[in-house]
Amino acid sequence: MNLPALLASLDARAHAAADWGKVASYIPELARVDPAQFAISVVLADGTLHSAGQSQTRFSIQSVSKVFTLACTLSRIGESLWSRVGREPSGDRFDSILLLEQEQGRPRNPFINAGALVTTDELLSGRAPREALSEILGFIRAAAGDDDIHIDGEVAASEQATGFRNIALANYLKSYDNLKNAPEMVLGTYFHQCAIEMTTEQLARAGRGIAGLPGAPLLLSPVKRRRIAALMMTCGHYDGSGDFAFRTGLPGKSGVGGGILVAVPGVASVAVWSPGLNAWGNSKVGTEAIEQLAHETGWSVFG
Amino acid sequence: MNLPALLASLDARAHAAADWGKVASYIPELARVDPAQFAISVVLADGTLHSAGQSQTRFSIQSVSKVFTLACTLSRIGESLWSRVGREPSGDRFDSILLLEQEQGRPRNPFINAGALVTTDELLSGRAPREALSEILGFIRAAAGDDDIHIDGEVAASEQATGFRNIALANYLKSYDNLKNAPEMVLGTYFHQCAIEMTTEQLARAGRGIAGLPGAPLLLSPVKRRRIAALMMTCGHYDGSGDFAFRTGLPGKSGVGGGILVAVPGVASVAVWSPGLNAWGNSKVGTEAIEQLAHETGWSVFG
Amino acid sequence: MNLPALLASLDARAHAAADWGKVASYIPELARVDPAQFAISVVLADGTLHSAGQSQTRFSIQSVSKVFTLACTLSRIGESLWSRVGREPSGDRFDSILLLEQEQGRPRNPFINAGALVTTDELLSGRAPREALSEILGFIRAAAGDDDIHIDGEVAASEQATGFRNIALANYLKSYDNLKNAPEMVLGTYFHQCAIEMTTEQLARAGRGIAGLPGAPLLLSPVKRRRIAALMMTCGHYDGSGDFAFRTGLPGKSGVGGGILVAVPGVASVAVWSPGLNAWGNSKVGTEAIEQLAHETGWSVFG
Amino acid sequence: MNLPALLASLDARAHAAADWGKVASYIPELARVDPAQFAISVVLADGTLHSAGQSQTRFSIQSVSKVFTLACTLSRIGESLWSRVGREPSGDRFDSILLLEQEQGRPRNPFINAGALVTTDELLSGRAPREALSEILGFIRAAAGDDDIHIDGEVAASEQATGFRNIALANYLKSYDNLKNAPEMVLGTYFHQCAIEMTTEQLARAGRGIAGLPGAPLLLSPVKRRRIAALMMTCGHYDGSGDFAFRTGLPGKSGVGGGILVAVPGVASVAVWSPGLNAWGNSKVGTEAIEQLAHETGWSVFG
Repeated sequence: MNLPALLASLDARAHAAADWGKVASYIPELARVDPAQFAISVVLADGTLHSAGQSQTRFSIQSVSKVFTLACTLSRIGESLWSRVGREPSGDRFDSILLLEQEQGRPRNPFINAGALVTTDELLSGRAPREALSEILGFIRAAAGDDDIHIDGEVAASEQATGFRNIALANYLKSYDNLKNAPEMVLGTYFHQCAIEMTTEQLARAGRGIAGLPGAPLLLSPVKRRRIAALMMTCGHYDGSGDFAFRTGLPGKSGVGGGILVAVPGVASVAVWSPGLNAWGNSKVGTEAIEQLAHETGWSVFG
Repeated sequence: MNLPALLASLDARAHAAADWGKVASYIPELARVDPAQFAISVVLADGTLHSAGQSQTRFSIQSVSKVFTLACTLSRIGESLWSRVGREPSGDRFDSILLLEQEQGRPRNPFINAGALVTTDELLSGRAPREALSEILGFIRAAAGDDDIHIDGEVAASEQATGFRNIALANYLKSYDNLKNAPEMVLGTYFHQCAIEMTTEQLARAGRGIAGLPGAPLLLSPVKRRRIAALMMTCGHYDGSGDFAFRTGLPGKSGVGGGILVAVPGVASVAVWSPGLNAWGNSKVGTEAIEQLAHETGWSVFG
Repeated sequence: MNLPALLASLDARAHAAADWGKVASYIPELARVDPAQFAISVVLADGTLHSAGQSQTRFSIQSVSKVFTLACTLSRIGESLWSRVGREPSGDRFDSILLLEQEQGRPRNPFINAGALVTTDELLSGRAPREALSEILGFIRAAAGDDDIHIDGEVAASEQATGFRNIALANYLKSYDNLKNAPEMVLGTYFHQCAIEMTTEQLARAGRGIAGLPGAPLLLSPVKRRRIAALMMTCGHYDGSGDFAFRTGLPGKSGVGGGILVAVPGVASVAVWSPGLNAWGNSKVGTEAIEQLAHETGWSVFG
Repeated sequence: MNLPALLASLDARAHAAADWGKVASYIPELARVDPAQFAISVVLADGTLHSAGQSQTRFSIQSVSKVFTLACTLSRIGESLWSRVGREPSGDRFDSILLLEQEQGRPRNPFINAGALVTTDELLSGRAPREALSEILGFIRAAAGDDDIHIDGEVAASEQATGFRNIALANYLKSYDNLKNAPEMVLGTYFHQCAIEMTTEQLARAGRGIAGLPGAPLLLSPVKRRRIAALMMTCGHYDGSGDFAFRTGLPGKSGVGGGILVAVPGVASVAVWSPGLNAWGNSKVGTEAIEQLAHETGWSVFG
């Protein structure tokens, strides 16, 4: 397999796409992004990095951050998180509040917004948002082996001013006593972690640990790593998770900024970015590229 | 790893269980089964078979049959099935009708009852139930390399007389024009395929192809095999699918008869049976045994 | 008030309607009816009958029958019905099955299909469908003071052959043990009572008792009469009940055949018919006529 | 009918109640109220006022205020409100958010919290909360003919500090662009209008107009009055509205403070108060008293 040529062909194919999907419109800063962009980066087990497209362009990782916040939280507090959040796919939109009412304030999983708010709340545990954010950012920098990873303050401010649905979710969780901290604290932390900016190169490196690649910084036990990957597979693409698993056979986590982090256990860590989204809120062209990559390489957790 | 010893310890552990779970009560024939039973069988890539417990006892495979019916249907008619049934976890009970109303008669996936009825309907395509059943049974026998696999007519009759919820599902699908055949035809076929009896030894052998073991009868293309495994992982345990994936890291499909078929791609095909069920309708002790097996062997699709 | 002139103007207005609505399409016999038809009949407290339009044309009363079946059942068995069916508006379509799952087989009220099936089941109580039907028909004939009221066997057969959603509802109720009789028995009775044919003149006369008009046959106690009227007001038009109450201020019960029975307590009994339906499955032009009638006469239970 | 004796017997009966229900616990100020209290006041068409129990005790009218806010809003802006809020019973709890998601930010009716927030938003229309509040308070004072009606600032502050579910609802509405003003503005106004304190005497007098009693201040046209009464009947008691209509045959609006305002059109305006609530969040003993009152007097809109 000639990986560089394959990645280049994925980039070419992306740019030939008739339809790039639509950028997320509910966050003003993201709504202005040009959808016709593409980048892909792959770190192999031998440590080599291969990229195509705008792999040096920083994008807002948004919900891809939930993987790292979950990893931080599990490392810090262990499995007690699961008394407050489930491990099941929700079958609903990423920002759905409906099941929260039916299931009395317990989010289905840590990768939908409600569940990520609870995870962030657990990580905060009385500390200032600044401290928790510094822990998340530190985790990502260590995972990527790169300190040049930052929060985009304008995106965070943009969400804070207009993220009414997330404000609703946090207050709803609080009404069920499933937030320990004040909703404003949790939301402030959450909006900032979502506003972390990375390139696909940085993101692919940061994902080496979850893919269990040799030589990755040891930030997670094998058990935790597998569990996070399992959650990515069943819940990582919201109500499009089953379809992503069906098409690619790989665990991944998407963000509304158009990024997707994919783990090929023991083989590769992959990051793709294209800001236009499909109907489920996942990168349209990014998903297609991963599907094609899996098809061409035969990479699949299902053998 | 000493697999025989490990399996023996799982059997011992099962029999030491304080709580075997409850047998399915809605099918009279199954309600009479003693919950305190256990069997496990493993076929390895080298073709060897290892078992512990009552691995010669036949049990009603029930919804495990959905894996084989799906395989048959995909082989026979290809991917057009997906215009009638989705590929997403439902987040609801196996026999839920709620989402069918919200999603206008299109079942979420082929492993919940509604989706299996549509799959069976597609396989029937105007033929007599007898023909479709003979195709499913033929597929399973070929997969297992064993002709001594049969339908338990009494279990089928028992379901036919009391399966009001499945009758409701079939008629509801028909009201949305998502059954081509008469509801009675589809239900008759469905109840009979669920009433297939197998031992864990037979079931583990029948699963070799889905696990992609060398030497398994070639009934499925690699792409179809992976896709079925992906569906098992995201949807194979109903509203407990996320939890099963989290605990075991392996794709599996359960049935209310207490059986579970698990694929360890390229490594092993595993069948476990214990008739008592947990809150999601999956074998309680069987699930625990698979979790322990995965823990001890390190088997996981997530590396 | 010149009632005959007013009714004539309503008939003229109906025929000037740009949009008659759509006839129910799920029952073949009803799908063939010409939507551009209209009739209205009013019986006043002094016993006089006034009509306009096709008030001699028989139409399928469909769900209007639920008022009479409920009245029969309450007369026969008293209030124990309420242990099996609620008294709350459902907020869902007339044939919805969704809430049945959420509320474990207990229909919200006796005027949605599921609730009417339970009411019919209670009325059957082990008797042959023929006997229960004869009781319902007898009740209606006595209420109307007219023996020339019959069941249209072709409509009943048409529903029996294609009423998959009602078959689903009955079997679903049975799965929760909320039918005492076999689903086929209850469905047979239900389809036949829905297929009763009446003219608006007959229906207006049959409604005199529920409107509490002097001289009406005494078939219901005042308490039962008021309770049935209350249910008509909160639940009589399915998920359009609130709108009907808001527009007209009067209790009414609609049927998908395009009939509506309205009670003006102590003042009048009104029957209207026009087969085209609005989005909620209630007669479009019929509803508009009742709204206009209430507006012109000042009839409203709210003073 | 000896009304004073009847009211005295209702008071005695209330105090003999084995179970007073539970006070609302989610608003700290209300949680401290002693549930074992009762008051009832009736204004008749002749203008006479009759009371029993603690009819001089002020209580927090809470959601009873929604009747007056709706009346103010309809008077001020007319029927355009209905483009933003429906007129159907919701079938869900008073503070439910579930249907808002299914129906894309359009509340079912103005008497559930979400609908009242939209109504308040419409009334605000860019003004300062103080102005809108002064309009509502002015309306109530004029309706009651009594200027000694005030807002309890502590109750308002208590809700503002802990009303997470209402904060969630307002932000959720805003996310669907169904609030014109900032959520904080709407919530501030809403919490204060709910914190209006009245005695049952004051409330019964304030309800004269809605009951259409002769001599009541003319604040509403007959059409608006009837429509508000219709909404009270179908939606005034949340998911217990059907049951209240069935039991009493009268339109009413309850509040979690334990108050209920009931209109007997043309006959009487009734206010009852007892702070303990039933399962639907409506005054338990208050509902029972109204049922008994209706039974003894024969008062019912259904003749």
